[in-house]
Amino acid sequence: MTKTQRGLNLFLRFLAFGATIAAVVVMVTSHDSTKVLNLTFTAKYNNEPVFKYFVIAEAVASGYSLIILLFTRSKNSLWRLVLILDVVIAMLLSSSVSAALAIAHVGKKGNDHVGWLPICGQVPKFCDHVTGSLIAGFVAAIIYLLLTCSSFYYVPNLFP
Amino acid sequence: MTKTQRGLNLFLRFLAFGATIAAVVVMVTSHDSTKVLNLTFTAKYNNEPVFKYFVIAEAVASGYSLIILLFTRSKNSLWRLVLILDVVIAMLLSSSVSAALAIAHVGKKGNDHVGWLPICGQVPKFCDHVTGSLIAGFVAAIIYLLLTCSSFYYVPNLFP
Repeated sequence: MTKTQRGLNLFLRFLAFGATIAAVVVMVTSHDSTKVLNLTFTAKYNNEPVFKYFVIAEAVASGYSLIILLFTRSKNSLWRLVLILDVVIAMLLSSSVSAALAIAHVGKKGNDHVGWLPICGQVPKFCDHVTGSLIAGFVAAIIYLLLTCSSFYYVPNLFP
Repeated sequence: MTKTQRGLNLFLRFLAFGATIAAVVVMVTSHDSTKVLNLTFTAKYNNEPVFKYFVIAEAVASGYSLIILLFTRSKNSLWRLVLILDVVIAMLLSSSVSAALAIAHVGKKGNDHVGWLPICGQVPKFCDHVTGSLIAGFVAAIIYLLLTCSSFYYVPNLFP
């Protein structure tokens, strides 16, 4: 790996760290309430198990990105482990974003067939936060895909 | 790659092909109906956009696995592209399984906070099919993770 490639790799990891931290903060601070028939209805991320999973997955990816940024060396014997963990984190991120997006879609559009009503009309601030958090999580997933693909690019002759 | 490693690689791809085909067939044949207040309510996979996405993603993974099984050669210059596509398919599978699982979870347990009622009590056959399909999709995602990790194992000296 040349110095430029290494710099790009670290820059991508730094971006991924920023994106995952942003996803966690924006999701955790999502909060909105409305009054329906004199009853106050409060929307919070931790009312939905899938959003909790999203926060945990993004936090794990964030911690992993930070550890790699702090402890990586140019000639590190653990590079193979890092490559495998990159793929695991990429899958974890795509999984958490997709699961949260599936629930957010029902929250936005509802599902007439089973009688699940949309809630974004009542709690727009909550939905805006969730959307922002999902965009940050999606960016992080794409960055980890790029990191993995760039690792394959460095391989001079994988199957000699 | 030795002959044994190559055999194992093809065996895993064959298993992934079987698992993704099973996921598609079991999801597409999911169908159940019930009568609520003299109205017939029918549960089908294509009433929910996320289940449609699941079927498309599993079908793409299935087609990709078949193409690799049919056209792979031991000394193929496209191996690097195959490795990158393996990661993309692994992420696609984990994404589709997680999204479908998120909706299936609401279908099973509902969500009291937003008034989404569970439906599995009314259409148990539909829910059994979805569960079976999700298990097959999960197995396929794990196989693609193993395939990607085994590729890294073959790399003798990735960062010399």
